[in-house]
Amino acid sequence: MKFIRDSLHGNLQINELEVKLIDTPQIQRLRRIKQLGFTYLVYPGANHTRFEHSIGAMYLASRLGNNLQLDDDEKELLRVCALLHDAGHGPFSHVSEGVRDTSHEELTSKLIKESQLSDILSENFNVNDIIKTINGKGVFGQIISGELDVDRMDYLLRDSYYTGVAYGVIDVERLIYNMELDDTITLRRKGVQAAESMLLARYFMYPSVYQHHTTRIINSMFRKCLRELFKTGAVDPVNIYQYDDLDIITGARAQDGYIKDMISRIDNRELFKTVFSLKLDEIENPEAVFKLSSQEIIKTEKELSEDLKIPQGYLIFDVPEYPSFDEMKTMVSVNSGRVKLGEISTIVSALKDARFNHADLCIYVPKDYSSKVSEFSFEDYIKIPD
Amino acid sequence: MKFIRDSLHGNLQINELEVKLIDTPQIQRLRRIKQLGFTYLVYPGANHTRFEHSIGAMYLASRLGNNLQLDDDEKELLRVCALLHDAGHGPFSHVSEGVRDTSHEELTSKLIKESQLSDILSENFNVNDIIKTINGKGVFGQIISGELDVDRMDYLLRDSYYTGVAYGVIDVERLIYNMELDDTITLRRKGVQAAESMLLARYFMYPSVYQHHTTRIINSMFRKCLRELFKTGAVDPVNIYQYDDLDIITGARAQDGYIKDMISRIDNRELFKTVFSLKLDEIENPEAVFKLSSQEIIKTEKELSEDLKIPQGYLIFDVPEYPSFDEMKTMVSVNSGRVKLGEISTIVSALKDARFNHADLCIYVPKDYSSKVSEFSFEDYIKIPD
Amino acid sequence: MKFIRDSLHGNLQINELEVKLIDTPQIQRLRRIKQLGFTYLVYPGANHTRFEHSIGAMYLASRLGNNLQLDDDEKELLRVCALLHDAGHGPFSHVSEGVRDTSHEELTSKLIKESQLSDILSENFNVNDIIKTINGKGVFGQIISGELDVDRMDYLLRDSYYTGVAYGVIDVERLIYNMELDDTITLRRKGVQAAESMLLARYFMYPSVYQHHTTRIINSMFRKCLRELFKTGAVDPVNIYQYDDLDIITGARAQDGYIKDMISRIDNRELFKTVFSLKLDEIENPEAVFKLSSQEIIKTEKELSEDLKIPQGYLIFDVPEYPSFDEMKTMVSVNSGRVKLGEISTIVSALKDARFNHADLCIYVPKDYSSKVSEFSFEDYIKIPD
Amino acid sequence: MKFIRDSLHGNLQINELEVKLIDTPQIQRLRRIKQLGFTYLVYPGANHTRFEHSIGAMYLASRLGNNLQLDDDEKELLRVCALLHDAGHGPFSHVSEGVRDTSHEELTSKLIKESQLSDILSENFNVNDIIKTINGKGVFGQIISGELDVDRMDYLLRDSYYTGVAYGVIDVERLIYNMELDDTITLRRKGVQAAESMLLARYFMYPSVYQHHTTRIINSMFRKCLRELFKTGAVDPVNIYQYDDLDIITGARAQDGYIKDMISRIDNRELFKTVFSLKLDEIENPEAVFKLSSQEIIKTEKELSEDLKIPQGYLIFDVPEYPSFDEMKTMVSVNSGRVKLGEISTIVSALKDARFNHADLCIYVPKDYSSKVSEFSFEDYIKIPD
Repeated sequence: MKFIRDSLHGNLQINELEVKLIDTPQIQRLRRIKQLGFTYLVYPGANHTRFEHSIGAMYLASRLGNNLQLDDDEKELLRVCALLHDAGHGPFSHVSEGVRDTSHEELTSKLIKESQLSDILSENFNVNDIIKTINGKGVFGQIISGELDVDRMDYLLRDSYYTGVAYGVIDVERLIYNMELDDTITLRRKGVQAAESMLLARYFMYPSVYQHHTTRIINSMFRKCLRELFKTGAVDPVNIYQYDDLDIITGARAQDGYIKDMISRIDNRELFKTVFSLKLDEIENPEAVFKLSSQEIIKTEKELSEDLKIPQGYLIFDVPEYPSFDEMKTMVSVNSGRVKLGEISTIVSALKDARFNHADLCIYVPKDYSSKVSEFSFEDYIKIPD
Repeated sequence: MKFIRDSLHGNLQINELEVKLIDTPQIQRLRRIKQLGFTYLVYPGANHTRFEHSIGAMYLASRLGNNLQLDDDEKELLRVCALLHDAGHGPFSHVSEGVRDTSHEELTSKLIKESQLSDILSENFNVNDIIKTINGKGVFGQIISGELDVDRMDYLLRDSYYTGVAYGVIDVERLIYNMELDDTITLRRKGVQAAESMLLARYFMYPSVYQHHTTRIINSMFRKCLRELFKTGAVDPVNIYQYDDLDIITGARAQDGYIKDMISRIDNRELFKTVFSLKLDEIENPEAVFKLSSQEIIKTEKELSEDLKIPQGYLIFDVPEYPSFDEMKTMVSVNSGRVKLGEISTIVSALKDARFNHADLCIYVPKDYSSKVSEFSFEDYIKIPD
Repeated sequence: MKFIRDSLHGNLQINELEVKLIDTPQIQRLRRIKQLGFTYLVYPGANHTRFEHSIGAMYLASRLGNNLQLDDDEKELLRVCALLHDAGHGPFSHVSEGVRDTSHEELTSKLIKESQLSDILSENFNVNDIIKTINGKGVFGQIISGELDVDRMDYLLRDSYYTGVAYGVIDVERLIYNMELDDTITLRRKGVQAAESMLLARYFMYPSVYQHHTTRIINSMFRKCLRELFKTGAVDPVNIYQYDDLDIITGARAQDGYIKDMISRIDNRELFKTVFSLKLDEIENPEAVFKLSSQEIIKTEKELSEDLKIPQGYLIFDVPEYPSFDEMKTMVSVNSGRVKLGEISTIVSALKDARFNHADLCIYVPKDYSSKVSEFSFEDYIKIPD
Repeated sequence: MKFIRDSLHGNLQINELEVKLIDTPQIQRLRRIKQLGFTYLVYPGANHTRFEHSIGAMYLASRLGNNLQLDDDEKELLRVCALLHDAGHGPFSHVSEGVRDTSHEELTSKLIKESQLSDILSENFNVNDIIKTINGKGVFGQIISGELDVDRMDYLLRDSYYTGVAYGVIDVERLIYNMELDDTITLRRKGVQAAESMLLARYFMYPSVYQHHTTRIINSMFRKCLRELFKTGAVDPVNIYQYDDLDIITGARAQDGYIKDMISRIDNRELFKTVFSLKLDEIENPEAVFKLSSQEIIKTEKELSEDLKIPQGYLIFDVPEYPSFDEMKTMVSVNSGRVKLGEISTIVSALKDARFNHADLCIYVPKDYSSKVSEFSFEDYIKIPD
């Protein structure tokens, strides 16, 4: 038995199997992957890592398992899934995700299969069960990857703790206590409010933290830089889960020209400025924005760059992340059977309508250019699909 | 200069004038008025008082005043109003309010005028300005008594701290920072989310704390008891703001019969049980419920008591507090001028629709009777006005 | 299974037996006994009660029991002892203790034996085992009443939480984790620091909270008042554990003359002032001070009152509580066997030397008199035994 | 005016001059220097940086300045000094310090003079005043670099927050409130306890965090690695303040042989194990240990390596950091004038005696070797100077 002191949840107990998993280079690497990518440039405390988050999610998984009165093997499966669920994340977590084709869940599956992790796991588990659960499938899938999963519970609390933004303070005790296990995780009626509160917490964290305007600028700068770095061959996008944050930053510093300039701007916080913004709740069909292909985005950037005489790569056309608050498929047990959370909660269904309130299409350029183009009619260049 | 150590806000500075006000019996009495009435019987930590809340509101008033760049006199006026805003509260705060005819705001005005408080105040202020502001009037009224006032900011934080229910943890910094002063308090666009979050916090605190089912039972038991106590003449309802929690409890203990029995049940937590509940979001016109007059309620109680052979006073028909989430009149400054918060916030307007989600009409009886009447058709007795 | 939400430790699980015990008037009364007596007049948040502290201590008892790998019966015994350990406290906790002859531990034993508590307990336990353990005897005695007991762990944390004084924030996890059970509780070498830190926390809380100068003044005023109240027969000191804080305050208000005046001064915070103070670390034999008998103290008060023409009862000669930091008998397991904590810890043994640093003999009089006697030679009247 | 949201102190206001300083590459670099070096390998939350600490210290400096009633220029000087006080830190903060000859204070002075920082500063200040104050000289020196400075206040709180070790929770409010300015910072008598508590907090943080055994192993492994890296010329020790944590880690990874192996062990947490430990409080003259020169240490390592057939560089002889708890020169104002804190505080002077309690001389080797050498007589090789 070992203990890890977590700044959020206190002293957490770790058994022998878990120690073995934690001691692999695959899990140790997560100590060097920041949970919130470049958010530390906006909230200076946001230096926390996927490692502590994974340990925290593991702890919440066993608390939930205890409450569901699972047997020891089931609880251990849950713990291990929570521990491993983010193992495939690339450097800077979600930031690098936009640049490659494969999701971090797929990469996690691949990583587990190919590495010593599967050897350690196969002594006690069917590795496919683990992978299935991590991908949100099966009876326990919703616990690891669902709307009210232990991943979210931990990251909302943790991101609040390290950014100092209070929105993510949720009532984990009430939530866990009101979950039941049928063929999937179901919420008791008494837990609806705790669930509403958690979904709202996430909603509020979007504009304040996850899609903070400055963070979006940095992320889009970094993605441009990373895409070019891939082209040099210095970093292999297929094996992105073998790199850590340091590799990418110093890898980019070692290059010349555009890549070096972009990483130096990030290092020194010489950030691009927003010169155009189109609020999605002010246009007719906001959904259409997300049909913009990357080719079209690149084309628009090129046209604008040329007409504005800004060097290629120095004008960024940024489509926001799709605000996915429209699911709410969690089942709630009521007298008459089970209904979807989105159906019985006025608050939760309001989130669907509110989801474009804080999203906008943006164009960023370096500070030097920003004053020069302030009068420009950017809107003429932006063609939103029908 | 003196300091008071507040468990929430830290060391708070108090000037000479404020010390004089605090040192009056009128303000000292607030140390013996629990902020949340009998909620300590549900959340054992909820023993906090109107006194510390008033000091906390005073502190937030000056933080808001600083941010609005008010001059020293204006800030002092705000501080004093926040300090005095609850001085007229009767024992157990809002619980005693339902039994008398006058609101605590009216009583506060009366108390200030009649006591040494007005002598102390009149050295520096026009007492009528103070009273006007406390009652939500004038340029500063919304700061002391409005939808986003310092009263609410403090009590949400404080009630969360002492109950252990996290819902009330709000982002006071962001809220205060985004307020402007026109002819009244106006919110900057950037503060909308902090305001949404605060209004939701209050919404969530209702069923969890303020209108928790057990608290409602105790409150309705206590109100019955207090009404009878008034009849004995032992406590004078007109001067209710001269009594503290202790006076009422021990005053009731000193009586015989019903009054003594009821207070003894509260003391020993032998609470009535709910034998009937009608959810307001399941009936057609929930608004109508609040047209029930106290005569009609008493008549229904009488009929039910007789038919069920329960002694008078031992069956309680409890109409919930009106869930007032339909205002949202706070003004938000946008490019085109000013709009109401309820108009631009999907989330806030959803609160209006959700306001009856947690409210229900209830009937309570002592535990001994509860099993005997479980099959009874209570609904036949309940006549909701059109 | 029930849950109680504690503001410090979160949702705490309570089993059926414990619910029965909690639902007795004897334990419910603790909801109306403030943990820190009149400290709320100094730190306005300090309204917490013996009830929540008892629940908190019960929780810590089972955490410690888990760590010591006790069986379920042993853990339940510990939990019950922690729950009941303060049941015999009189109103305002330790403040009333100075006025009677019997300690709260003795009263707790008596109360358990005489009340329905022993009936409930005897279904599962030998009541004498419970009483023995509560009094610090037997294998588990040190867990409930010892130098590093769960009582202290809870009250240090709790008193810090509600006063806002950070000194009591201790590392409960590390402490509990480093305790072993031999024939008594023993500390592992690795836990020495956590123990040092806890003993220091208590040391620091003395002058800041427990023996804060203003609190001492109020306590000594209250004790004078209570002593007179006993004489009237309105309150029976033998059955002090049947009264709550409210009984005593309103009982005193119902009297005339001195008693009424004193309680009114406490209610309105018109406190006596210190006119003389003798620091114990500045005299030769501080231990001797504690040999002063109550007769001698009363005699001194009388002489001073007469010579200063202050009415009887309005001059208080206050000997501080004995600062008991000289025990440190906790055993620590080291390679060579076991040694006393006080022997291997330089820090802990320093506490013995430092124990008189903050203690002083004081004389208090009403504010009106204080200026008149400022030049008086009080020291001539104080005779410290050899 | 700008705001930075600090996870500890909340929204912190930053003026135009400070924004200019913060926006330099010199201060931005601090975002990439971990405050506690490799401690994140022991406490996974300890990823916080010199950047947020510098901002936090700046905030505390102005709170102290307010309390001392300094004028605006003096407060600004204090703020700027606190902001810059760590600018010269090399990668991994103090860990790299042991490898070079110059202290971080000297490097900070050099960096300020040589960089654009001095240009920005010289518009408002005499740069030499800034440097003097940062080095603890002059009237304000003790505020920035003294026994009770804002640097320590911030790091104790911050390190507690991020490690989850509660020892560092100190009463900053009481401390700041009790400081006075004479010709230097002086403590009021009433602040002695807050000062004791802070010095003890630091004492307790040593074995738990700053000199945690695992941290010491990692640090000594890293220092060996860094020394070799310097020899390759890839990193220039003279300009160490131009590198960040990433440069060093990835710089080492890019090497071959010993350097690559050592950094890979740190990355994967394959740490050396302790095979010998000599507690300093068990030897006669612990002070002498610190006279061991680096030549002697290297010589001992060499002898041991040869005799144990362990490759050069894979046996580490680690002398602990000198436990500097023997100063306590802070002045306290008492009736009779001023005395040293160490003279009037029993607790503080006990720290001097206790300072070797947790220190030990250690020898570490890779895990594979550790079992083979467990019987070896290491003590014969260790020669402590007289």
